[in-house]
Amino acid sequence: MVLDPQGVAVENSLIALGYKNVHKVRVGKYIELILTAENREDAAIQVEEMARRLLSNPVIEDFSCTLQEAGV
Amino acid sequence: MVLDPQGVAVENSLIALGYKNVHKVRVGKYIELILTAENREDAAIQVEEMARRLLSNPVIEDFSCTLQEAGV
Repeated sequence: MVLDPQGVAVENSLIALGYKNVHKVRVGKYIELILTAENREDAAIQVEEMARRLLSNPVIEDFSCTLQEAGV
Repeated sequence: MVLDPQGVAVENSLIALGYKNVHKVRVGKYIELILTAENREDAAIQVEEMARRLLSNPVIEDFSCTLQEAGV
């Protein structure tokens, strides 16, 4: 869990606009990509590595990865 | 499908760093929030409305919403 000033700003805007039943808004990045790999395990390892090493800033961001098989 | 210069930049960086098996990178926003609602249908309508009216810019962005029930 990290600080998220953008989430707080969006939450305040939503509440000001009448959505008073909204709580704990968090804003993050979403990255989607196609990866060719030998198998699901290789794909998972590579995606986790990209996320950790390049796509996220570990000081201020958490990340999670999900895979979806596309077939050949 | 909309133009995504940030996705192109991330793709080029990943390839330059050795991930040559990466294609079609797209970068977007991810917004997570807790909503109290009478039922799942009300929640879906409200979330779709927030996304359409406030959280996305329809000229340059697509969006999709998913719900997860938290219980009481």
